[in-house]
Amino acid sequence: MLKTTPKEHFLVQIQFVEEKQEFSRFPTKTGRRSLSRSISQSSTDSYSSAASYTDSSDDETSPRDKTQINSKGSSDFCVKNIKQNEFGRREIEIAEQDMSALISLRKRAQSEKPLAGAKIVGCTHITAQTAVLIETLVALGAQCRWTACNIYSTQNEVAAALSETGVAVFAWKGESEDDFWWCIDRCVNTEGWQPNMILDDGGDLTHWVYKKYPNVFKKIRGIVEESVTGVHRLYQLSKAGKLCVPAMNVNDSVTKQKFDNLYCCRESILDGLKRTTDVMFGGKQVVICGYGEVGKGCCAALKALGAIVYVTEIDPICALQACMDGFRVVKLNEVIRQVDIIITCTGNKNVVTRDQLDRMKNGSIVCNMGHSNTEIDVASLRTPELTWERVRSQVDHVIWPDGKRVILLAEGRLLNLSCSTVPTFVLSITATTQALALIELYNAPEGRYKQDVYLLPKKMDEYVASLHLTTFDAHLTELTDDQAKYLGLNKNGPFKPNYYRY
Amino acid sequence: MLKTTPKEHFLVQIQFVEEKQEFSRFPTKTGRRSLSRSISQSSTDSYSSAASYTDSSDDETSPRDKTQINSKGSSDFCVKNIKQNEFGRREIEIAEQDMSALISLRKRAQSEKPLAGAKIVGCTHITAQTAVLIETLVALGAQCRWTACNIYSTQNEVAAALSETGVAVFAWKGESEDDFWWCIDRCVNTEGWQPNMILDDGGDLTHWVYKKYPNVFKKIRGIVEESVTGVHRLYQLSKAGKLCVPAMNVNDSVTKQKFDNLYCCRESILDGLKRTTDVMFGGKQVVICGYGEVGKGCCAALKALGAIVYVTEIDPICALQACMDGFRVVKLNEVIRQVDIIITCTGNKNVVTRDQLDRMKNGSIVCNMGHSNTEIDVASLRTPELTWERVRSQVDHVIWPDGKRVILLAEGRLLNLSCSTVPTFVLSITATTQALALIELYNAPEGRYKQDVYLLPKKMDEYVASLHLTTFDAHLTELTDDQAKYLGLNKNGPFKPNYYRY
Amino acid sequence: MLKTTPKEHFLVQIQFVEEKQEFSRFPTKTGRRSLSRSISQSSTDSYSSAASYTDSSDDETSPRDKTQINSKGSSDFCVKNIKQNEFGRREIEIAEQDMSALISLRKRAQSEKPLAGAKIVGCTHITAQTAVLIETLVALGAQCRWTACNIYSTQNEVAAALSETGVAVFAWKGESEDDFWWCIDRCVNTEGWQPNMILDDGGDLTHWVYKKYPNVFKKIRGIVEESVTGVHRLYQLSKAGKLCVPAMNVNDSVTKQKFDNLYCCRESILDGLKRTTDVMFGGKQVVICGYGEVGKGCCAALKALGAIVYVTEIDPICALQACMDGFRVVKLNEVIRQVDIIITCTGNKNVVTRDQLDRMKNGSIVCNMGHSNTEIDVASLRTPELTWERVRSQVDHVIWPDGKRVILLAEGRLLNLSCSTVPTFVLSITATTQALALIELYNAPEGRYKQDVYLLPKKMDEYVASLHLTTFDAHLTELTDDQAKYLGLNKNGPFKPNYYRY
Amino acid sequence: MLKTTPKEHFLVQIQFVEEKQEFSRFPTKTGRRSLSRSISQSSTDSYSSAASYTDSSDDETSPRDKTQINSKGSSDFCVKNIKQNEFGRREIEIAEQDMSALISLRKRAQSEKPLAGAKIVGCTHITAQTAVLIETLVALGAQCRWTACNIYSTQNEVAAALSETGVAVFAWKGESEDDFWWCIDRCVNTEGWQPNMILDDGGDLTHWVYKKYPNVFKKIRGIVEESVTGVHRLYQLSKAGKLCVPAMNVNDSVTKQKFDNLYCCRESILDGLKRTTDVMFGGKQVVICGYGEVGKGCCAALKALGAIVYVTEIDPICALQACMDGFRVVKLNEVIRQVDIIITCTGNKNVVTRDQLDRMKNGSIVCNMGHSNTEIDVASLRTPELTWERVRSQVDHVIWPDGKRVILLAEGRLLNLSCSTVPTFVLSITATTQALALIELYNAPEGRYKQDVYLLPKKMDEYVASLHLTTFDAHLTELTDDQAKYLGLNKNGPFKPNYYRY
Repeated sequence: MLKTTPKEHFLVQIQFVEEKQEFSRFPTKTGRRSLSRSISQSSTDSYSSAASYTDSSDDETSPRDKTQINSKGSSDFCVKNIKQNEFGRREIEIAEQDMSALISLRKRAQSEKPLAGAKIVGCTHITAQTAVLIETLVALGAQCRWTACNIYSTQNEVAAALSETGVAVFAWKGESEDDFWWCIDRCVNTEGWQPNMILDDGGDLTHWVYKKYPNVFKKIRGIVEESVTGVHRLYQLSKAGKLCVPAMNVNDSVTKQKFDNLYCCRESILDGLKRTTDVMFGGKQVVICGYGEVGKGCCAALKALGAIVYVTEIDPICALQACMDGFRVVKLNEVIRQVDIIITCTGNKNVVTRDQLDRMKNGSIVCNMGHSNTEIDVASLRTPELTWERVRSQVDHVIWPDGKRVILLAEGRLLNLSCSTVPTFVLSITATTQALALIELYNAPEGRYKQDVYLLPKKMDEYVASLHLTTFDAHLTELTDDQAKYLGLNKNGPFKPNYYRY
Repeated sequence: MLKTTPKEHFLVQIQFVEEKQEFSRFPTKTGRRSLSRSISQSSTDSYSSAASYTDSSDDETSPRDKTQINSKGSSDFCVKNIKQNEFGRREIEIAEQDMSALISLRKRAQSEKPLAGAKIVGCTHITAQTAVLIETLVALGAQCRWTACNIYSTQNEVAAALSETGVAVFAWKGESEDDFWWCIDRCVNTEGWQPNMILDDGGDLTHWVYKKYPNVFKKIRGIVEESVTGVHRLYQLSKAGKLCVPAMNVNDSVTKQKFDNLYCCRESILDGLKRTTDVMFGGKQVVICGYGEVGKGCCAALKALGAIVYVTEIDPICALQACMDGFRVVKLNEVIRQVDIIITCTGNKNVVTRDQLDRMKNGSIVCNMGHSNTEIDVASLRTPELTWERVRSQVDHVIWPDGKRVILLAEGRLLNLSCSTVPTFVLSITATTQALALIELYNAPEGRYKQDVYLLPKKMDEYVASLHLTTFDAHLTELTDDQAKYLGLNKNGPFKPNYYRY
Repeated sequence: MLKTTPKEHFLVQIQFVEEKQEFSRFPTKTGRRSLSRSISQSSTDSYSSAASYTDSSDDETSPRDKTQINSKGSSDFCVKNIKQNEFGRREIEIAEQDMSALISLRKRAQSEKPLAGAKIVGCTHITAQTAVLIETLVALGAQCRWTACNIYSTQNEVAAALSETGVAVFAWKGESEDDFWWCIDRCVNTEGWQPNMILDDGGDLTHWVYKKYPNVFKKIRGIVEESVTGVHRLYQLSKAGKLCVPAMNVNDSVTKQKFDNLYCCRESILDGLKRTTDVMFGGKQVVICGYGEVGKGCCAALKALGAIVYVTEIDPICALQACMDGFRVVKLNEVIRQVDIIITCTGNKNVVTRDQLDRMKNGSIVCNMGHSNTEIDVASLRTPELTWERVRSQVDHVIWPDGKRVILLAEGRLLNLSCSTVPTFVLSITATTQALALIELYNAPEGRYKQDVYLLPKKMDEYVASLHLTTFDAHLTELTDDQAKYLGLNKNGPFKPNYYRY
Repeated sequence: MLKTTPKEHFLVQIQFVEEKQEFSRFPTKTGRRSLSRSISQSSTDSYSSAASYTDSSDDETSPRDKTQINSKGSSDFCVKNIKQNEFGRREIEIAEQDMSALISLRKRAQSEKPLAGAKIVGCTHITAQTAVLIETLVALGAQCRWTACNIYSTQNEVAAALSETGVAVFAWKGESEDDFWWCIDRCVNTEGWQPNMILDDGGDLTHWVYKKYPNVFKKIRGIVEESVTGVHRLYQLSKAGKLCVPAMNVNDSVTKQKFDNLYCCRESILDGLKRTTDVMFGGKQVVICGYGEVGKGCCAALKALGAIVYVTEIDPICALQACMDGFRVVKLNEVIRQVDIIITCTGNKNVVTRDQLDRMKNGSIVCNMGHSNTEIDVASLRTPELTWERVRSQVDHVIWPDGKRVILLAEGRLLNLSCSTVPTFVLSITATTQALALIELYNAPEGRYKQDVYLLPKKMDEYVASLHLTTFDAHLTELTDDQAKYLGLNKNGPFKPNYYRY
């Protein structure tokens, strides 16, 4: 079971052969995943910059074969090198500076200890940012055991720093598939400690517990899941009547969605294009396929920098929005010969076909901001008459027989994950959402949550937002009693009906 | 029963004394209405420009006392002057040019006659634009009888033109309250004709039928309602278990909402301010209270024209959106002394208080884009020490003892309705939504709609949008079979889940 | 000699038959003027709103035939009705609130009286705003006699208010041509008072003095001229070797130019279109002919509100700027069939021809923001097969035989002057520039200015800007001595070389 | 004599001790340079990415000690390794694709050979882009000898490729100071060949010829200089009466200036900040010191991405522009405690002082887009109580005793040159300008240019722009004869007076 980029988990098909594939209808950035056990090419990208401090040590010994103890005498962990903990601590401290929302939550709730008694087993990327999350959970009273959801993304020093302070971490950069499952198992299967909460990213931990430790699973008080894939798997379990535990889908929280898609992509499209191609945006003709949140972000950024932007859409409502925002809505074929850049953001497949690539201008750029690596038909370019020339990391020139070059970025995988970085602030939104979801599920009165998959309550969603306002020195207005009564609202929220569109 | 601005109907309290007032929780542009029978001051504004072609005729005879027949020999109507029909016809023809969506619907569905057999009684503003709607319904097979939902807004020539072609219209500009109910009654209560569909704007027609003709009411196949108030009344009926007919709330359709609020207000804030004050926007400091769709539109427009914009918000999610869009989120008191313009868009009351008005700069402007006339505490300005000076229509200088002037627009009523106009395109969106809702309810298989209030099906909402794309020469992309399968979607939509936020 | 809009004076050809017409090569908003004595159609527009408070009195007696005295017993003035002075005073007081720069100049220089001894004869529009200028000149020590540069634009109450306080004003709304010259003459030719400074707008006053009172003219210490036309006439005089007085061209001051063109038009294009047509901007396709300052302002505003904007240009540098700002640069013929709106801003003639108008879409709008009324070939539309229908003031529907309507605004004259207003702030920039130019010329040491036409010194231009910064609560940074030395600048400016492009 | 970044040449003071330092008053991006012979720290940055393909060969032999011949048998060149020419050729071919303007010029003028007989000696960066320029000059008839203006920036393969085709290149990456002058000398001092044109970037070549070969210098027909520094030196020579040759200052061409400053910086500010810090722009408070072209570009880009931008200015005209563009104009001290990012663009020194850095927030970022490394007082941060931590290339955390970190980029040197790249399109504008200046000077009729420094004629400037329009598929409109006459213009330009501000 091998992992790739944050949102691109691959399901372990072997465990789910009985499950019918049913699509969850999310035409968002991260739509449907292909179900495959093989290691995808993208699995080697992972987190370019996030892990950049972690130089590959010369030490070739597998952590599983080492005996390490931390300064407190504990050896209940398995990381690359416990001695790297000081460097990791510094990384965590720097991350804390950009994650004031979590620190603030830590301070506000520290005396209440809302997670006292919680035994959380977690499976996420292990980075400085998740370390801030984990240490927040501990500060709020939880005991934590942790493993990585991706075999490449672990920052070894951070894993060491966490282990040094007593969190049982089982993870290192460059795990084998066997290591991956071994680490998960070591988190769950330990003497004298039984998890009662799960925090998962991708669903592997959840399914390991579900399959291997059904008795543990039944006693779990709540599962929090943040990925499209993991959520999809939970809905499948639920549909099959096998989800005997309340679960919370934090992927679809309002705040998280806006930041993952609109706000993040508005910046990463520029960053990804510049870092790879140094292209000048002014005056360029760009077509953006898909006007969802990701497309809206890309369009706004490029228009603001002087590009002429066209939009393609299948949905008339989104198309009308594009019109009102000042973009011509066209079919790709209408502009394919004139555009300098194509960006796909549809969640669909074969949005750019070989036939269209054949008609593009010399020097034009093709990239994907949508999902997976299906949007551009890259496979169709791997034919003998075309020459591929790798000119930089993540940048290929595909050369036609007549000399025409098309510049393909990240081989059609996600540009924002492959060639840009996810800002800490966006990760802070996600981590805070996860923390609040854990608190909510752990403290909910019996019966509030049944054996089903829930969205984060709007009030919690609003709380995530409010914790992040201080970063911007933003000051909320409070309703007077009289106003609250007039509006029929509670002064502390929630302030909107569930269907509100923001 | 007297009406005011398009969205600002006043409920007939006498009929609803038994109903508990329960708030519908729409913190949108048009939130809660005060329930009052008295004529509000704003009832004289109504549609400034829409009705501007209608010169007050010298004829003082009440239409009820006249005998008129159209060229076909019918006298089943009651309008100001049937002879004005040619001028009205020209108005309708001009409106048709901007309502190509309806004309297109007319053409596409004309052979099917989806409303064959429908007997629609309608109560809306009677303008050139609604005439295009009514004539579309007729073209699709319906028989129509129509009356006005506002005593001031009828365009007499248009009423004449409709009557001339055989639509039974009972409406004129300047009805008395008694006239108002008489007209409604004449629409419903006619020999040999019993309505089976209701199209309402405000709920007065619906309730007249419900109260006076319960047997007719029971046989209605569907009610379509477009106003906040009317929808609120339907939900109340439904809650009370008295709604024995399926009803469709078209006010909350996605397309309609976006145009009524975001797109319309983005333009009308500029227009309303310019027409009344000629203020230059560049460099002005503006505070906008509320960052919902209306606030977002106002902020975007003013920022684009060089104003420095501050936002106040009670909802942390909207506040965070304001931050990411580049606006400082403040409490009103922080900036009250420095801003040049205050614009309210909250749906709340007393958002700007006398205390705050006292601290504003000389020459600053205060206006309301939100709802009703509650947002600014205008009443608090009607005190002896302040002098009011009317400098133009809709513009008052309120003068403090020290000579300071604050410029109050439209006495705190809606600027966009009082001092600007609603573009025909926006009215076209609404009319098309209404037409499709009527078709849907009339043609739905038995059992699809129960005795409840429904939102327009997403597919219909998408169809409204698609009909308007031609105006912009926008070309939709169609899914291939393969792509539709991959996404798990029908090629013809709907394309998004119901909770999608656009 | 009849005047029209603020910048559109018509030269008195009779006086200049000997002068060769030589073009001054300003491809700006106000390029070349046609030289004609006849009253242009646009002469009836003039200042729509500025003069709107001036109700036409029933008094039909010519002011020349009346005897009026002010409260101080003087009768050295000629206005419509001296009794209107109180209302005029209020207008002036309101204007003062938006002209804080002039008031500030008044305060700063009041003790120095830099204009002590100056006898200024002025010929400008007579409005509340110019009254603030005149009273500032008086406060700085000048004696003033004043007349109107336009037979329609005088605000009678303001003329009365000025006369009441002792300024000798000779002007009223609706002068005949004979009146016009009589008023000018009365300003100049008065016993015991001989002007030593001229402030002119259009050049008529200057030429009257030059022709009729050559001995007075020789003793003038300086002429300040603000219009394109007047400046053109001065350069002609200078070229002919007949300008025996230093003159200052304030029309081309940096600050004034930016406000007259870029900033003013950015707002007035929206205002002018809305007031006349209520058109919705979102999604509209617009072509803007000319990408100078006016065109840049129009493009920025419409793009910001969601229009899709195309640009035509003859100058490759401006065309490249349009590209970099995100606009497609096309020939008009490429887009003529698809655009909804054409706006001309070239300073050229026949930019839109009949042939092109023939190919426009039904319902499209054509208007001019450039200069004069030459840009659109309106004359070509006055042919029998086309029907003109006036639907509102300044709005004509031109109807083709097939029913197609093209909406022509202001009959091709300047939209921003005909259908919008010039904000007081823009007038304040001009008035302050004029005041500073008068001070500079009046106080300059002998020999600094020769018998030539000068631009306002950059330092003065900067001072105009600095006086207006307080309106925006803007705080300038001051250079330290060390920094000034490093940059080789004087700490008080000028800060830029003359050729700096801003 | 060592060189650094493209615009940051250091004068050879030893040669100019007699020259008085007089400031040229360019408050633009690249203001005054310090005159120093020492190697600045920034000299190691140079062209990060431009030279990135040039792997340091292991060959340690100095090119001066090698004997190399090209395939044509010539050894009149001195480069690192002539065998790298094929790889260099590919680089040149790729660059040609983005420099279609030069290629187009090549094609249009190839038959005329306007440089037939020209013997050009050049001293510029030697990159793929300058190779396209050099080969264009050759195609137009010139003979060229070339050397590098910067000891680090030469792309060795490109130098090899040029040498292979017969251009005498003397340059390699990593020259010593002695090498630098040796190379220049070898270009000029060669038997049987005497230059008659100079193309210089920084003025070193010009001064070498002036000092060492005065007889050659006298016979030069023209000098073309593109750098601020070189231009400054030419004006000094001219002022001293020692410039016996016409020279053209292409640095101040309109088109080049706009691209070097406004358009380039609008993109590179985002790129530079992202690559170094991954900062999220949305909601960030940023202060930009200086609202010239560079500042305007930075402000526009950051505002568009959701930052809240403040401006500081010393010049009231620029300050007023900032107001009208929607930025609050403040003194730095007013906002220093609240901003997240400071960007200097003033051309001044000590714009950000230690005292201000002391008051900045933890985590705030400081960088310079203006000129040189003087704007931020970096020296003041090199004190014992502050800890410097290098976290990435070009990124230092400066840590205060209380743990506060300020993130300093590029040690205060130019962010856009150190941490971003200059797009090929911008280099194409410069190269085309240089080529046209050479053609103009070489072909000008006797007497048109005296022994002085000239700006590029406007018509040539317009031609540079027009050659670049094809990149954007932009179509210029041509004046009709009638229109040209009306405007008093030649149909082929120039279209604007010299003082036009664009």
